[in-house]
Order: sequence, then C-alpha cells, then structure tokens
Amino acid sequence: MNVLIVYAHPEPRSLNGSLKTFTVDRLTQRGHDVRVADLYAMRWKPTIDADDFPARAPDGPLDLEADSQQAYATGTQPPDVAAQQADLRWADAVIFQFPLWWYSMPAILKGWVERVYAYGFAYGVGEHSDRHWGDRFGEGIFQGKRALLVVTAGGWDSHYGERGVNGPMEDLLFPITRGILHYPGFEVLPSFVVYRAKKMDEARFARIREELGKRLDGLWTEEPIAYRKQNGGDYEIPALTLKPGLEEVGGSGFRLHVRQRV
Amino acid sequence: MNVLIVYAHPEPRSLNGSLKTFTVDRLTQRGHDVRVADLYAMRWKPTIDADDFPARAPDGPLDLEADSQQAYATGTQPPDVAAQQADLRWADAVIFQFPLWWYSMPAILKGWVERVYAYGFAYGVGEHSDRHWGDRFGEGIFQGKRALLVVTAGGWDSHYGERGVNGPMEDLLFPITRGILHYPGFEVLPSFVVYRAKKMDEARFARIREELGKRLDGLWTEEPIAYRKQNGGDYEIPALTLKPGLEEVGGSGFRLHVRQRV
Repeated sequence: MNVLIVYAHPEPRSLNGSLKTFTVDRLTQRGHDVRVADLYAMRWKPTIDADDFPARAPDGPLDLEADSQQAYATGTQPPDVAAQQADLRWADAVIFQFPLWWYSMPAILKGWVERVYAYGFAYGVGEHSDRHWGDRFGEGIFQGKRALLVVTAGGWDSHYGERGVNGPMEDLLFPITRGILHYPGFEVLPSFVVYRAKKMDEARFARIREELGKRLDGLWTEEPIAYRKQNGGDYEIPALTLKPGLEEVGGSGFRLHVRQRV
Repeated sequence: MNVLIVYAHPEPRSLNGSLKTFTVDRLTQRGHDVRVADLYAMRWKPTIDADDFPARAPDGPLDLEADSQQAYATGTQPPDVAAQQADLRWADAVIFQFPLWWYSMPAILKGWVERVYAYGFAYGVGEHSDRHWGDRFGEGIFQGKRALLVVTAGGWDSHYGERGVNGPMEDLLFPITRGILHYPGFEVLPSFVVYRAKKMDEARFARIREELGKRLDGLWTEEPIAYRKQNGGDYEIPALTLKPGLEEVGGSGFRLHVRQRV
C-alpha cells in the first residue's frame, strides 16, 4: 500500500524526528511505499494568498473559493500544491505527524491544508442543493482511504483525559480528525498520542515505538472512528442537524457525531 | 481603553475587511485607542523556526521552549515578535478577527500565536511543581484583560448549532478561546460569529453591524465565559483533573470546564 506522511516539526534531532524515521522504516519493512512531506525541510509556504492563483484576474477582489476552484479546474495551481494533491491521490493512507502547539496543529501544517485542499478537490464537490449538501463527512475524494494522527504533547495524559484541564484530547483533535480528514472522505483511526513528550528516556521510547509499530501494522485493519456520515441518513437536510433520538444518553457536543457501538 | 485587533484576512474588499473597518471606527468613535495587526498586509512570517532565535547556539538541536525562553529573557527576539508583545501589553482588550477555515483560525494567525506567545511571556510562567502547575487558565500575563473572537463562517447557524453536523461553534472555538486566550489569563467574551458569510446583502450587513456594534460597546461590561480557573480550587493538582461532583448533570467534554450559572 502507499502511505503519505505529512510531517511538521522543525528539528530532525527530536522525538518527532525519531518517530517519523521509525514510521518510515516500519512501513517500508512491511512492504509499503512511503512518501514524506517534511514541511519544514521543504520550507513549505504556509500562507494562502493571491500568489496561489497566478492566473486570476488581478483587478477583482481575491475570493479564495472562486479563485481556488478556477485554479484547480484549469491546472494553474502552484506546482507545490499540485504535487501534494498528486501524492494524496497516490496514497492509500495518510499520516499527519505533528507536535500539539496551542491545542492544534502547527501553522505550517494548517497552511498545507488551506493551500492543498482546493475547491473542487477536497471541498465543493458533489451536488449542493437543499436536498444534498455536497459530498462530505464520509464522502468525497478520499473515500476509501485511511488517515491517522500521530501527535506529541507536553502534558500528562490525565491533563488531556475525560476530566482533564485541557479538555479531552479526542475533542481537541476533532476539528482535525472530523473537520479536516473525515470531511473529504477519509476513514480516520483513533489518534496515536505521546504525552509528556519532553520527559523521554530510552526505556519509555522503546515502549512507544512498540505501541506505534502495532498501530502502523493495523493501519489497514483497525476499526476507524465511527463518525456519522452526512449523507448516511442521520442528519436533517438542509439544516444538517442530527435527527432526534439518535444520540446516546448524556451525549453532547462533538460526541453526538460518533455512532456508539453496542 | 486600548484595543488591539489581530486580523487575518487577505482581501480588504471582503466582508471581513468591512467588519474590521467598522470595528476600528466604532471603537475610535467611543473614545478608545485602537491598533490593528493586519497580518496579511504586514506579510507576517507564520512559521516559527530557527530564524526566530538568532542568538541561539547554532550547533545544538532546536528546542522551541528553551530557545524561546532564552530569546525572550535576553531581548534577542525578532523585532516583529517583540512589537506584537508590546502591543499585547499595551492593550486592555484584544480582538481576534478571522474567517473560520477548516474549523480553525487561518494558518497566518496560528503562526502569530506560535511566534508571539514566547516561553516566559504567555506560558512557562509561575511556579511549576507538583503543587502548582504554572499560572495559566485564568492567570498569567493577560489577567485583567479581555478578549473577543469575531469570526465568519460559510455555513448556516444550524450547521454549527448544538446538534449541527460540524459540531457546536463554541466547542470548535474552545481550543482558541480557552486554549489560546484564557490560558495566558484573558477573560474571554462569547464569540461573535457571522454565519452564511458568502450570502450577504446590504440589509443583513446593516443588522450585523448593529449587533457587532452592541458587542463592541459591551467589551468592558459584558459577562465573560465562566471558564474554571486552573488554580481556583476546581482541579486536582498535579493530575489537573476536575474534582468529583463539580460537573453539571449531563456535562461532558469541554463543557466540564465552564462553571454553570444558576
């Protein structure tokens, strides 16, 4: 299988650097083909702006949706954007690996999403009407592909647990796992998170490698998060609200959008 | 009072551009002093990297916490970073205005946070021990200041409501309102969100200006979100988990960290 790793850390001699190398080696040893988008090493341009649409009419106001749609449809996107889109098409699975900075992904990775996820490619696809609000949340270009977050965090796991002061990690990552990955169709696996990333020793790092290795071996077989599909019958359209009676007792917030397994 | 607007949109001739101009005018008319960090116009450098620490030893591995701490303490930060920190100190209130892109802030604004929020300035302050886990979540450098998000979104309000397909807007913004603003001490007001931002006409825009104007007039008097303070007695330390019995019935996820008013 083909795996694309989109990796955002500035220092190769870091925990993240070591985990990325381990991931590449493990997947390669298992016979997979691996490509890495090392955003810092590539000096990835993180800001979406008028330079991303060289063929647009220069006088009118910049309109990211319209200009993105036009550039994607006419093949006038910047080469770095088109290359990442080609790698996403090539991939059977995508891994985003990054340190959690201020409760989200690094800016350079967010900018990768903003620039690579063109209109007509990752959004704005499918019928848009009062009966069908696009192919998204479980449908879209990446349907049939899998995605996994590999994340490092400085705090303890209890700080990010169900009652932890930061909020639950799965909720902090929900805007990414559901909003960036499930939206264009990926099946998303439960995130692999390394806590206390600054307090690492060789024994603990060996255990983490072993755990991550198992998760990588399960990339094709592990059960994904059971996010509800927008067009799977659970939502009223066009209000896009969850139909009455489908939530679990006590479920609220983001949890409403995950089917509970019995 | 002094208000800093941190603004992230690439096109002045846009809804965001108009709202920003309106905000500046309104606050100025009310006698406040206003500064704007127009990140696109400033061509803000969004990526935190080794160039941010010109005085660091070049041979060792980049360590963002240690290098940031050193640069902040020794006054060797880049001028653009130091200038933003000075504006934050000057401000009595800060407004982040941005379009919601992929369920979060634009990369250029996330990169502003990553670069301006130095160690020793916005985090890593106060005693760090098993009895006190830093001055954060309600304490810190911005204690006594207020913050407000002004956000535009393409979807309908129902899509972001309590049962909406995207998840509730207040939860999507929680990593920002609590994780980026309340963390270094800001009192955070409920966010001002404009939905269906692409479907605007003059009558609706007039209503939105009126609503936003009221919110701006209430910047100093409105009740902030009642986020629990980390060192206010609600959390076990050092586990940093909410003490038993404090949650509301049915509360879960991010909601645990807001005190309910009776």
